Amino acid sequence: SLPLVLIAGPCAMESRDHALFMAEALAGLADRLGIGLVYKSSFDKANRSSADSARGIGLDRALDIFAEVKRRTGLPVLTDVHDAAQCAAVAEVVDVLQIPAFLCRQTDLLLAAAATGRAVNVKKGQFLAPWDMVNVVDKIVGGGNPNVLVTERGASFGYNTLVSDMRALPVLAATGAPVVFDATHSVQQPGGQGKTSGGQREFVPVLARAAVAVGVAAVFIETHEAPERAPSDGPNMVPLSEMESLVGVLQGFDRLAKALPRR
Amino acid sequence: SLPLVLIAGPCAMESRDHALFMAEALAGLADRLGIGLVYKSSFDKANRSSADSARGIGLDRALDIFAEVKRRTGLPVLTDVHDAAQCAAVAEVVDVLQIPAFLCRQTDLLLAAAATGRAVNVKKGQFLAPWDMVNVVDKIVGGGNPNVLVTERGASFGYNTLVSDMRALPVLAATGAPVVFDATHSVQQPGGQGKTSGGQREFVPVLARAAVAVGVAAVFIETHEAPERAPSDGPNMVPLSEMESLVGVLQGFDRLAKALPRR
Amino acid sequence: SLPLVLIAGPCAMESRDHALFMAEALAGLADRLGIGLVYKSSFDKANRSSADSARGIGLDRALDIFAEVKRRTGLPVLTDVHDAAQCAAVAEVVDVLQIPAFLCRQTDLLLAAAATGRAVNVKKGQFLAPWDMVNVVDKIVGGGNPNVLVTERGASFGYNTLVSDMRALPVLAATGAPVVFDATHSVQQPGGQGKTSGGQREFVPVLARAAVAVGVAAVFIETHEAPERAPSDGPNMVPLSEMESLVGVLQGFDRLAKALPRR
Amino acid sequence: SLPLVLIAGPCAMESRDHALFMAEALAGLADRLGIGLVYKSSFDKANRSSADSARGIGLDRALDIFAEVKRRTGLPVLTDVHDAAQCAAVAEVVDVLQIPAFLCRQTDLLLAAAATGRAVNVKKGQFLAPWDMVNVVDKIVGGGNPNVLVTERGASFGYNTLVSDMRALPVLAATGAPVVFDATHSVQQPGGQGKTSGGQREFVPVLARAAVAVGVAAVFIETHEAPERAPSDGPNMVPLSEMESLVGVLQGFDRLAKALPRR
Repeated sequence: SLPLVLIAGPCAMESRDHALFMAEALAGLADRLGIGLVYKSSFDKANRSSADSARGIGLDRALDIFAEVKRRTGLPVLTDVHDAAQCAAVAEVVDVLQIPAFLCRQTDLLLAAAATGRAVNVKKGQFLAPWDMVNVVDKIVGGGNPNVLVTERGASFGYNTLVSDMRALPVLAATGAPVVFDATHSVQQPGGQGKTSGGQREFVPVLARAAVAVGVAAVFIETHEAPERAPSDGPNMVPLSEMESLVGVLQGFDRLAKALPRR
Repeated sequence: SLPLVLIAGPCAMESRDHALFMAEALAGLADRLGIGLVYKSSFDKANRSSADSARGIGLDRALDIFAEVKRRTGLPVLTDVHDAAQCAAVAEVVDVLQIPAFLCRQTDLLLAAAATGRAVNVKKGQFLAPWDMVNVVDKIVGGGNPNVLVTERGASFGYNTLVSDMRALPVLAATGAPVVFDATHSVQQPGGQGKTSGGQREFVPVLARAAVAVGVAAVFIETHEAPERAPSDGPNMVPLSEMESLVGVLQGFDRLAKALPRR
Repeated sequence: SLPLVLIAGPCAMESRDHALFMAEALAGLADRLGIGLVYKSSFDKANRSSADSARGIGLDRALDIFAEVKRRTGLPVLTDVHDAAQCAAVAEVVDVLQIPAFLCRQTDLLLAAAATGRAVNVKKGQFLAPWDMVNVVDKIVGGGNPNVLVTERGASFGYNTLVSDMRALPVLAATGAPVVFDATHSVQQPGGQGKTSGGQREFVPVLARAAVAVGVAAVFIETHEAPERAPSDGPNMVPLSEMESLVGVLQGFDRLAKALPRR
Repeated sequence: SLPLVLIAGPCAMESRDHALFMAEALAGLADRLGIGLVYKSSFDKANRSSADSARGIGLDRALDIFAEVKRRTGLPVLTDVHDAAQCAAVAEVVDVLQIPAFLCRQTDLLLAAAATGRAVNVKKGQFLAPWDMVNVVDKIVGGGNPNVLVTERGASFGYNTLVSDMRALPVLAATGAPVVFDATHSVQQPGGQGKTSGGQREFVPVLARAAVAVGVAAVFIETHEAPERAPSDGPNMVPLSEMESLVGVLQGFDRLAKALPRR
C-alpha cells in the first residue's frame, strides 16, 4: 500500500492570487510533511442551493490559473467537470477530472472523462450503495481508462444530513480502484441553512481519522485561510492554519494502518 | 382544487409505432375516465446502472415522434432534459420539460428550461429535504417562468431502496407549485439488481392511493404493455392492462380528497 | 373488510374525572359517526426522555378508572403493558393489551400478554422491518392467542424524526393480523425538544388519510381537550375539538378503500 | 486519557465449562497484550427474533458461574439486565450492569441499576440521536451513581441494517461518560435472516479500528471459539483465534489516538 495522498484546496477558485497563495501554502505544508498533494479547486459551482449563490470563475480563466499553479508549484491539480463537453478542454491542463456525486451514473460524462486518458475520480452519490460503484468503475475502465479513483462522501441519512458508513471503504476498495475519503463533503448538511448548505467542520478530523485508520489511498479536505469568507462550503472547510497538524495526525494513522497485515 | 391529472407513458421511447400505440391506448383510457393526460417518454436514459444498458432513441427522432403523437392524439407531452443545450430544441415540441431528480439543483439546466416558457416539472432529489425544494422553485420562477411543477419520487432510506414520505406532499405544496407524485420511481430499488435497478411494482397502487388521498395535482405512472420486455424500469412499470382500473380508483380518492375542506 | 375502527384517548391517564370526560366525549363522537371505538390511555410513561418528566397514575388506580369508563360508556379499553408481571392484572379489566414498540421482540412480555387471552396489539419497533413482524405475530399465536393486532408507528429516518412507509401496511397485513396505523406516534420527533420528544401534529391528518386510503383495520389517534397542557405527547396529540371532523374524513376514505377490489 | 479497555466474551453464557474456558482464554490474551479486560456474557436473550430461539442459562446459574469466573480469573464481569427487579441480585456478583439499547430510556430500569452502586453501561438505542443520551446519563447520575458508561452500537439505516456514525463518539463523550464502541452489534443485521438476525463479521475490525482512531474508552467485541455453533449472534462474533491480533491492532491505534492533542 502506498502512503496517504492529500487532495486539498479551497472549494471554489476565487482568483489567480488566491489560488497561488493557497497552492503555495499547501505545497509548503506537503513538503514539510512529506505527503503527496493534489491541488483541488472548482471553477463552477453549478448546483448551489440558491440561484443567488456565487458560481465561480469560469472554465477558461480557471484553466489558465491551474496551468500557472502547476508551473509555479509543480503540483498536480484536480477539478470537477459537469458536462461531457468540458472534459477535453479541462484535460489539457488538469491532471485529475472529478465527477460530482450526483452525476456519478451519467454515462456520457463518465465516458468523456475516460476518453481524455487523465485520471478520473468519481464521487459516490449520496443515494448509491457502495457495491453499486462497481458499475461506475466498469463504465470508465470499459471506456479504455484504467486510471479511476472512487470517493466516499457520505450517504443520505434522513433529511439535511449525511452519514459516513465506514463499511463502504473496503467495499469500494473491492472495485480495484484507489479509495478517497472526502472529509469535507461528508460533514456537509445539505440545504441545512435555508439558502445554503450547512456543515459541521468539527467532525472533519473525526471522520478523516476513522477513514484513514480503516485504510484509504487519499483523503480529500477542502481548506481556506478564512472559511467564513469563502464563497461556498465555508461551514465545512478546515482553516488553513489547522491543516498541517490535522494532516500530520492522519499520516500517523496511515502509517500504522498500512504497516498492518491487510485482512 | 382541480381534478387529478395523469402523467403516463412508457419509461423509454422505443419506436414510432410503439409510441403511437401507447399514446392511443392511453388517450382512449383517459377519454373513458374523463381524466387529463400528459404523455411521457424519455428519449435518452443517460444514467443507467451499467454502460451496457439500453440508452434510447435520441433527441431528433424523439421530437419527430412526439410531434406525431401530439397531432394524432391531441395529448400534451412530457420528456426529461439532461443538459441546458437540449432545452430550446425540446421545447419546440414538448409541452412539459422535466428535470431529473439528480439534476434538481443544477442552476444552468433549471434556467435554460425556465427560459423556454414551457412548463417545467422538477423531480425532488432522493437526497433532498422537501423544504429545500423552495429554492429550486425560486430558481425557475426567478428565471421568469411561473409554470413550475414539483414531483416527489422517494427519499433515500438506507441502501438500495427509497421511502415515500407523505409529509413531503404538503411541504412541497407550500412552494405554491402543483405537486406530482411519481409512483413509478418511488418504488424503484436503485442498483438493486446488480447491473440494473430493481423495482416493486406491487407497491405502485399502494403509494399512489396514499398520495392521492393526501392530495396531489397529478400522479405519474409509467406503463408498458409488456413491462418484462421494456428496455428500462420494467420491474416498476404497471402493465397497460391494469392502468384503467388503477387510475379509476385513484380518481375516486381524488374526488373525495378534493371535496373535503383543505386543512 | 370490516369498517374502520378508532383507537383514541389521551396519551396518559390523568385522573378519574379527566378519563371519564374524555371517554364520554369520544363515545359521543363515535356514536354520531357510527364508528367502533376503543378507549386508550397509559397508566405509566416508563420511557420518558427525562427522569423529571411526568410518569402516570399507576396501575391500580388506572384499573379502577378503566373499569368505571367501561361501566359508564360501554367502551372497550386499551392500555400498554411494560412488564410480563403486569399482564394478568391488566387483563382483568382491559380489553386490549398493547405492547410498546421498543418491547416488540420481548418474548416473555409477548407470551404473558398472549396467555391472558385478551387481544394483544403489538407496535412495530422503529428499528424493525415490517416483514420481521411475522416472527412477533408467531410468538403470540404460538402462545395460543390468535387475537393479535399489529401497529405501524413509524420507522427511524436519520435522527430525531420518523418516516411512515406506506409499503409497510400491506406487508404487515400479510401476517394475517389486523393492521392499525398509529398516526400520533408516527409524527413524534423522538428527543427532538431536548428533554422531551417533539411532534408534528399538523401531519396527523396527512398520514392518517394516506394509511386509511391504503387500507387499515383501525387508526390510532391520541387526543386531548388541551394538548398544550397534556403531561406527555402534547405536540402530537390532536385537539379533541378537531377529532370529529378528522375521523369523519377518514371514514370516507375507509369506505372508498374497502369498496374497491383488493389487489 | 486512559488506555483502551476490552469488553469481551461470548454473547450468551452457555455453561460453566464454556464460560471458564472463554474467560481463561481471554484473560491470557489480555495478560499478553497488557490490556484491561471485562468479561461479558448474557444469561438471558429475552428479545430473540423468534420464540423458538435459544434463551439462555438463567439468572441464578449465571451468577454462580460469574462468581467462579471472577474467583478463577480475577476479571471484572459484565452482563445485561432487562428488568428493574433483576438489578440488586445481579449487582451482588456482577461489576458492570449493562442496559440493552432498546431499554435505554426505561426510567425504572435505569434507576434500579443506578441504585446498586455498580457501574452502569447503557447502550444507545438504534432509534436515538447521540445528543439525546445526555438525558439517559442524567437519569443515572441523578439517581446518585456517577459511574456510567455509554455505548454506541449502530443507528437504524433503512431496514435490516445499521450504520455506525463516528460523529456520535465525540457527541457521546460530551456527556462526560466514558464511551464504549460495540463492534459486534454495530454489524448486526436485525432480522436479516428471517428467523434470526444476521451479521457482517468481516466489518468488526473495520468499525473497531475507526472508532478507536476517533478515540474511545473501551471496545466491546463478542467472541466464540466456534461462532457458527454459538446459540446467538454467531454471524457477528469474531472467532477467538482472531481476537489477539485484532485487539493488538486496536491497541496500536489507541496509543496513537491518545498520544495526540485532543481537539
